[in-house]
Amino acid sequence: MPYRAAVDDYRFLIEDVLDFAALRATDRYAEATDDVTSAILSEAGRLCDDVLAPLQRGGDLHPAKLENGIVRTSPGFAEGFAAIAEGGWIGMSADPEFGGMGLPMTLTSAVNEMMSGACLSLQLAPLMSQGQIEALEHHASDAIKELYLPKLISGEWTGTMNLTESQAGSDVGALSSRAEDNGDGTYAVSGQKIYISWGDNDFAGNVCHLVLARLPGAPAGTKGISLFLVPKFIPDENGEPGQRNGVSVVSLEHKMGLHGSPTAVMQYDNATGWIVGREGGGMAAMFTMMNNARLGVGEQGIGAAEGAYQLALDYALERKQGRSSVEGGTGTIVDHADVRRMLLSMKADIFASRAIALSCAYASDMARAGQGDEWAARAAFLTPITKAFGTDVGMSVAEMGVQVHGGMGFIEETGAAQFSRDVRVTAIYEGTNGIQAMDLVGRKMMDGGEAANRLLDEIEADAETARDPFPRMADAVWQASETLREATEWMTAQKDMNERFAGAVPYLRAFARVLGGHLHLQAAMAEKAASGSGAREKLARFYIQRLLPEHQGLLAHAQAGAEDLYALEVEDLSR
Amino acid sequence: MPYRAAVDDYRFLIEDVLDFAALRATDRYAEATDDVTSAILSEAGRLCDDVLAPLQRGGDLHPAKLENGIVRTSPGFAEGFAAIAEGGWIGMSADPEFGGMGLPMTLTSAVNEMMSGACLSLQLAPLMSQGQIEALEHHASDAIKELYLPKLISGEWTGTMNLTESQAGSDVGALSSRAEDNGDGTYAVSGQKIYISWGDNDFAGNVCHLVLARLPGAPAGTKGISLFLVPKFIPDENGEPGQRNGVSVVSLEHKMGLHGSPTAVMQYDNATGWIVGREGGGMAAMFTMMNNARLGVGEQGIGAAEGAYQLALDYALERKQGRSSVEGGTGTIVDHADVRRMLLSMKADIFASRAIALSCAYASDMARAGQGDEWAARAAFLTPITKAFGTDVGMSVAEMGVQVHGGMGFIEETGAAQFSRDVRVTAIYEGTNGIQAMDLVGRKMMDGGEAANRLLDEIEADAETARDPFPRMADAVWQASETLREATEWMTAQKDMNERFAGAVPYLRAFARVLGGHLHLQAAMAEKAASGSGAREKLARFYIQRLLPEHQGLLAHAQAGAEDLYALEVEDLSR
Repeated sequence: MPYRAAVDDYRFLIEDVLDFAALRATDRYAEATDDVTSAILSEAGRLCDDVLAPLQRGGDLHPAKLENGIVRTSPGFAEGFAAIAEGGWIGMSADPEFGGMGLPMTLTSAVNEMMSGACLSLQLAPLMSQGQIEALEHHASDAIKELYLPKLISGEWTGTMNLTESQAGSDVGALSSRAEDNGDGTYAVSGQKIYISWGDNDFAGNVCHLVLARLPGAPAGTKGISLFLVPKFIPDENGEPGQRNGVSVVSLEHKMGLHGSPTAVMQYDNATGWIVGREGGGMAAMFTMMNNARLGVGEQGIGAAEGAYQLALDYALERKQGRSSVEGGTGTIVDHADVRRMLLSMKADIFASRAIALSCAYASDMARAGQGDEWAARAAFLTPITKAFGTDVGMSVAEMGVQVHGGMGFIEETGAAQFSRDVRVTAIYEGTNGIQAMDLVGRKMMDGGEAANRLLDEIEADAETARDPFPRMADAVWQASETLREATEWMTAQKDMNERFAGAVPYLRAFARVLGGHLHLQAAMAEKAASGSGAREKLARFYIQRLLPEHQGLLAHAQAGAEDLYALEVEDLSR
Repeated sequence: MPYRAAVDDYRFLIEDVLDFAALRATDRYAEATDDVTSAILSEAGRLCDDVLAPLQRGGDLHPAKLENGIVRTSPGFAEGFAAIAEGGWIGMSADPEFGGMGLPMTLTSAVNEMMSGACLSLQLAPLMSQGQIEALEHHASDAIKELYLPKLISGEWTGTMNLTESQAGSDVGALSSRAEDNGDGTYAVSGQKIYISWGDNDFAGNVCHLVLARLPGAPAGTKGISLFLVPKFIPDENGEPGQRNGVSVVSLEHKMGLHGSPTAVMQYDNATGWIVGREGGGMAAMFTMMNNARLGVGEQGIGAAEGAYQLALDYALERKQGRSSVEGGTGTIVDHADVRRMLLSMKADIFASRAIALSCAYASDMARAGQGDEWAARAAFLTPITKAFGTDVGMSVAEMGVQVHGGMGFIEETGAAQFSRDVRVTAIYEGTNGIQAMDLVGRKMMDGGEAANRLLDEIEADAETARDPFPRMADAVWQASETLREATEWMTAQKDMNERFAGAVPYLRAFARVLGGHLHLQAAMAEKAASGSGAREKLARFYIQRLLPEHQGLLAHAQAGAEDLYALEVEDLSR
């Protein structure tokens, strides 16, 4: 069976689990009624199922190519992008003044996730534009906004982000690209950038690059970085693509996966650019784009997981092998306990990560709608968790998807392997998952753990409420939250950041595990309130009984400190 | 730095951790002195470093191809195989009567592991021959032995195993290939087999296939299966390759990785074959080959992990990024806590799985040397653990290796991605890791848990001894063993096999975790006894403090039973 977007799951989370009524009560999102929400999800779902999913395999088999300096995209990708653009899906949350729909990020996140499950390599193109749109909305001059935003939002033009240089990856502050003031309101930008996703394409009228570079005499490190908008074609007096700018694609990378997405080395030679934000304010502007992109990349992982799950489930429902383990079974391998274990683990983790991601988007919407700083802090706290856990789930679910297929999983024709190869990069780009974890225990705990503890308070209060219908599940979640609270206290008590970093990755994962338990429990409660089928309660039981206990081992690891990491000499590592 | 076989680690395990003196005291292995052991490991290490490792990347870039019915192997593979053959490495443990070296499987396992780390796709060829050699030694007629064994052992000919058919994978008993008695001591074999590793090649004088098929009127299921030896060329009166047999390669699979290893669909049309073992005794004969191969595949996972680790470590020692987190650090990313965490996790898991694998091989040697049935039971119990944990470690270490590389990890040129793609199949072939886990809690516990409990007794006795120098580590291992013992009691108490199967995979992994803790502790004890540097004690601390606690969550999962796996309706899985 072909891909079918998980529309019902998003709708359930939005309508029954998140407090969307509170969001609709705000001025900003009053128009996001349940009818609108429902129509948006269904329509986007059809696009994914009918138009995007059929492109997935061709993108892998026929990678984007560089021919005489021009990037030729995979078969059908131009039409796929046009369909995304025409549906208005790029600018769902963009400012209506410039052609956006002004809808909540929660909805954009759901749609981004379903597009990722359909065709990850193509979906990365509009995701890059979305990040650029948000950065320009917040930091660009009015002139830039008026010229660029309508074209980016309509999909006539596309956007990219240019941070990384060969010596400056996770350490953005080490970058050396330069910009000089031309004295006419423009800058001359020079340097080489690597890993530029969708650095060029053959379907957009213009490709707009946001480039981090240094002005002469700028201080070292991140403080000396400014942000520039550098279009492939310099707009003429009518705002149409004019003269070719000094920017070119040097080469495309040969990657493990995501072949449909051209990953470029970009060369800038005195390219004409316009500053976005103030001089030296490049990182602040870029963070707007990165936070958006981090949520988006988390959704990519979850979407890929959904696609991989559906493929594996379809296979399990068709493949006959061995005797049925259960009376009245289907006679296919879905009857086998270990296959069930894999499928349920996949489904339960997808739901957990999806619920976390939408909670994160919802918090950012509440913040945008002026509902208080606590919401901004909540969104900031959940962003690295969404990114790292969402993409970890993407990897582990895709890997289980291969495993469910047995020998067929290793054969490329089935598509299971492609999910696994494609999703791999999501744990790396937009800040590796290690960087996300360091962000969580570092920057996101500069409040002394306030955002974390507020979340834990909420989890425990909800667990108390859930004790009546679901005493065992509620108690397991409550206990897990207490264990996590102790670990959080340990974290915030460490003044030496390296002590925190030594356990950051297992801590982040444990936090996600507990949050997942909380949200599964909330789903079971919501289902009960609506007199549902009981299916969500059963999935919650599986998660809470089997997957949640993982937090114990993780939190032991998280609090082990840095000492033993450095006890072994570097020379001993090679012995 | 290029690949360097972990010779010191094998030597340490063999000489200082395993009781190799007991093996040398047997008649069978009296010649495996420490000088011999040492020379073997060093010499094999040089072959891996100098000859095999340079072939790894070419195998990926230039996959084996089928041209006009002939399999053309990757560049240099013919020479690489010849070097393996000339060194005598194929027949290390084979019967000296037919040209083998008659050495312990422990040594063969170490050499197989180091060859896997150097070039996994090529190493699979001699591994297949080894399995066939062992099957023929145990089950074939004298005439077959005399003709085939010398040529397989010398590497003049190669061997394959043919079990799987498109409708018969994990369920071997469903196969439908046929054999008919020709009345002249030969059989006519017909049918199609899939996933045949190294099904053909262009460097061996003959390719010998062991094929499972049914005789007319044979009962359904595994009882009706017989085993046949079907050579590509029928030997003439001088035993030289003569007339072409009725066997051909239909196609080669397009796989996620392991491109250097041709995976063939084989067609048999009235091919001339000789029976191996008795009629209907095919499975018994095949199990000899499979047990050998399962240990071998476990070693493949560990070898790939070692290769991936070395690549990642080299990168971490060269890549400069960000400020050093430690005083007096190297100034490269190896100083960062999270990079250390990854490298140490990789190293600690490699050691744990390597020690388990060599313990398994050692037990089978003790059994072969007539030291009692307990050793055979020990080997049988450790085989699925070695296979599944070794290959899981292969996957997770390769994945961490990609992560250590950051963006470079996703680019094929670095080779990190190749380890990850290549090793993926090891968790699938020779019985998926799910099948291994079911074997562990099913067949391997038909003794009521005796083999398991004997191992736990030993772990706890050793932990008691270790309490003096290492009280905390010893206690952690002892406690973990007790928790595992309770879970083992739970397992053996389940009469309904599906209850066991529902938790088989997490149970197996928890068992491996605890065994790994035990063996790390033994390594620390051995190092202390030899007044070593303390490096092994530090690695043991890391493992026991950070990785061992994972067993808690796993054992909760393992004992959850089957009910919740089937609580969700099949229809709910697709919702």
